[in-house]
Amino acid sequence: MNQKFVIFTVGRVVLIEAALLVLPLAVSLLYGESCALDFALTIVVALGVGSLLSLLCRGKHGDISIKDSFMVVALTWIVLSAIGALPFVLSKEIPAYIDAFFETVSGFTTTGATILTNVEALSRGMLFWRSFTHWIGGMGILVFVVMLLKTTDRSINILKAEMPGPTMDKLAPKSRDTAKILYLLYIVLTVLEIVFLLFGGMSLFDSVVHALSTAGTGGFGAYNASAADFSPYIQWVLTAFMFLFAVNFNLYYLLLLRRGREVLHNTELKVYLAIVFVAVAVITIDILPLYKTFSVSLRQAAFQVASIMSTTGFITADFTVWSPLSKMVLLGLMFVGGCAGSTAGGLKMSRVTILCKMIRRELRHTLRPRMVDVIKVDGRPLSEQTAHSVAVYFALYMMCITGLLVALSFSPFDLETNLFATISCFNNVGPGFGMVGPLGNYSPYSPVIKLFLCAGMLLGRLEIYPMLLLFVPAAWRKK
Amino acid sequence: MNQKFVIFTVGRVVLIEAALLVLPLAVSLLYGESCALDFALTIVVALGVGSLLSLLCRGKHGDISIKDSFMVVALTWIVLSAIGALPFVLSKEIPAYIDAFFETVSGFTTTGATILTNVEALSRGMLFWRSFTHWIGGMGILVFVVMLLKTTDRSINILKAEMPGPTMDKLAPKSRDTAKILYLLYIVLTVLEIVFLLFGGMSLFDSVVHALSTAGTGGFGAYNASAADFSPYIQWVLTAFMFLFAVNFNLYYLLLLRRGREVLHNTELKVYLAIVFVAVAVITIDILPLYKTFSVSLRQAAFQVASIMSTTGFITADFTVWSPLSKMVLLGLMFVGGCAGSTAGGLKMSRVTILCKMIRRELRHTLRPRMVDVIKVDGRPLSEQTAHSVAVYFALYMMCITGLLVALSFSPFDLETNLFATISCFNNVGPGFGMVGPLGNYSPYSPVIKLFLCAGMLLGRLEIYPMLLLFVPAAWRKK
Repeated sequence: MNQKFVIFTVGRVVLIEAALLVLPLAVSLLYGESCALDFALTIVVALGVGSLLSLLCRGKHGDISIKDSFMVVALTWIVLSAIGALPFVLSKEIPAYIDAFFETVSGFTTTGATILTNVEALSRGMLFWRSFTHWIGGMGILVFVVMLLKTTDRSINILKAEMPGPTMDKLAPKSRDTAKILYLLYIVLTVLEIVFLLFGGMSLFDSVVHALSTAGTGGFGAYNASAADFSPYIQWVLTAFMFLFAVNFNLYYLLLLRRGREVLHNTELKVYLAIVFVAVAVITIDILPLYKTFSVSLRQAAFQVASIMSTTGFITADFTVWSPLSKMVLLGLMFVGGCAGSTAGGLKMSRVTILCKMIRRELRHTLRPRMVDVIKVDGRPLSEQTAHSVAVYFALYMMCITGLLVALSFSPFDLETNLFATISCFNNVGPGFGMVGPLGNYSPYSPVIKLFLCAGMLLGRLEIYPMLLLFVPAAWRKK
Repeated sequence: MNQKFVIFTVGRVVLIEAALLVLPLAVSLLYGESCALDFALTIVVALGVGSLLSLLCRGKHGDISIKDSFMVVALTWIVLSAIGALPFVLSKEIPAYIDAFFETVSGFTTTGATILTNVEALSRGMLFWRSFTHWIGGMGILVFVVMLLKTTDRSINILKAEMPGPTMDKLAPKSRDTAKILYLLYIVLTVLEIVFLLFGGMSLFDSVVHALSTAGTGGFGAYNASAADFSPYIQWVLTAFMFLFAVNFNLYYLLLLRRGREVLHNTELKVYLAIVFVAVAVITIDILPLYKTFSVSLRQAAFQVASIMSTTGFITADFTVWSPLSKMVLLGLMFVGGCAGSTAGGLKMSRVTILCKMIRRELRHTLRPRMVDVIKVDGRPLSEQTAHSVAVYFALYMMCITGLLVALSFSPFDLETNLFATISCFNNVGPGFGMVGPLGNYSPYSPVIKLFLCAGMLLGRLEIYPMLLLFVPAAWRKK
């Protein structure tokens, strides 16, 4: 490990967190809330820690390997969450540190799982901070860093280590430019959503909070009923933006470049739209007897499909009372998740597509062993190395979920609750079924189990490898 | 498809089934039961169907492709189950044909899932037939065919299509000899178990029934309480033989050849023993408060681990009241299953081992992209093609389970019941949790869902590909 580089970068990110914390500080000052002091104190702590780390390790850093990038990513997310939890504890709005840490990890990983039983009791500053962590985590904290810091072109490694999905296209020759383009698109879409929500009569504060959470596909809201009490218009706006933020951002960039033809030929997008259509259709028909009218059923189905598939986790209905069929569809969507290169979690649409193509090929190969068959994605042949990595990732993904489930089974809760807590946290969705369903939350779990769930959220968000590396003793050895 | 060859072979297997049905006929005559007539009638039907099919398609068969072997395997298992269900219906002991078909598929696939609420009401002839289907299915009906029919060396394809596990060693130069060796070992072990059970004071009938079910790792017994009312000695004997029948039979052959050193270096065996040891230890400690004494806990833990891991499905305790931790361990074992080349179901120990090694390599490869790293099994390098196939098989396996779960979600039962019914049937275990737990059975499911479960049992038993082929229209086309 290139310790100097790793510590220096973590330090710089903490300094950026200090800067980002100015925003919730401003919000709480605006509303004259006492928690402003707690944000100020956290900023001081972040400035101190950040300066110390980056000053200690400034100067030449030498070669940066992929391993170093992975270490930076894993450690950054943990340190940021550890510091980001402070305002909750200092303000006593979430008194226990583990709970606050859980809430912050859930925020940065855009999971949206909460330990709060009464969200509406939080101050506006805290509500803003919760949603803002989603927004920051959504595009990846380090993409931001890459954009701001002077770095070499090797920093694409960091982007690769953090950005979800099997492929990370370089949109621009320099990774700093790539990051800038992605962030610009992200900001534009977020502002657009705020405008649409304001237009529906939502207050500015609520609009901002919900837009930030949608953009990061997180799911923290401002109300105990999540999105259930909003007007149909607002619910449709949220639905639309949840779908939009689960699409690969590269496609928006291609649209800007007027390369619409390439967008139409994107395999992942086609699969995504097909799955959305089928899932919404099945659930709409299935829940029709519950909601009487077609328009209400369609809205509930579309909202919940968008929310689960984009791994956002907003809720308009208690879907635990839906039929087993609809619940199964939602469970399936939790695994699949959104598109690669979006802010969504889950296994990712592109991986599922590649896996299906590999299975089809294997079946053909079994019948005609001498046949040579290449898998094509977006009209181009896929390298065997990528296909292999996707298959191994899937196995690793299932094993992590199994391992986490074993850890959770030490809790006294029923299997359904534990199973869905695991799947929901690992795929960064938020709500599950059973005790952690739309009407429940994660507070009854013990502190140790909460830490395991934090690990699960981080593993899922960072696509396993960077986090696993932390447990390899050799990775910590100084070069 | 080489229709002539496929139909001819299916016909010959049906004739063999007619011969095998003489045994339950003899049992029912011995006990003076009226169901003897029903067995006789079924034998007549089987003789008729079998003769017709094989007479229609005798003569030269031409080339046999892998596809033909797969079709033979898939169709044989379905036709055998369809005919094997007749005695239950004719005797009205299982009046509905779908129920009888479910019971027979469950028998031949060595699952042991039952739709019976009162097993003890069955006649002895039927009880024997149920366990005998396990025994026949255990080693693979077609291994039997290969042994009896005059075949060329290409028949190793049929063995490959039917025998579980990623590797199928040829023990002898000719596949007929391989089949003979395997069957001989199978018979010797079964007889050994009967002797041990008789020694414990079990009646001859019960000893035979339970030995046949253990050998096939099936799980059909003769009592409503399964194995719960047996003496500790009997339970330990069953435990030992369940463990033995889940080991790769090739290893016993190596022992006979005094090549014990190779057995000791077998990777799969080492992993198997390690998992058994850990699982038994964890559960013993975990259930100690329930059963008070260490010896009872150890017996219950060892029995249940052996039963689930070997995918037999005998029961000595209502493990649904065990803690979530123990239940999780059992759930994990359901997936893992026994060793390749044994009569057990599940994903198979060797596949799990290879997957773990692939993950370790992928992690190392991520850190050092230029490193070349070969996976070794039993001290020999594993081909990339095999590794690739194992990863794809795992993905396909998970997708089949998901698909089956979606089908089951059309039933009105809770998710836990459906989830475990799916996993238990697909891995050929038998009992699950919830409604299909140790005290329940599969009878409440609708006929359509029962057919889906039958498909699941066959998919799991034949390792997916042969069954999938039935749904490929091109496979049916005449050459």
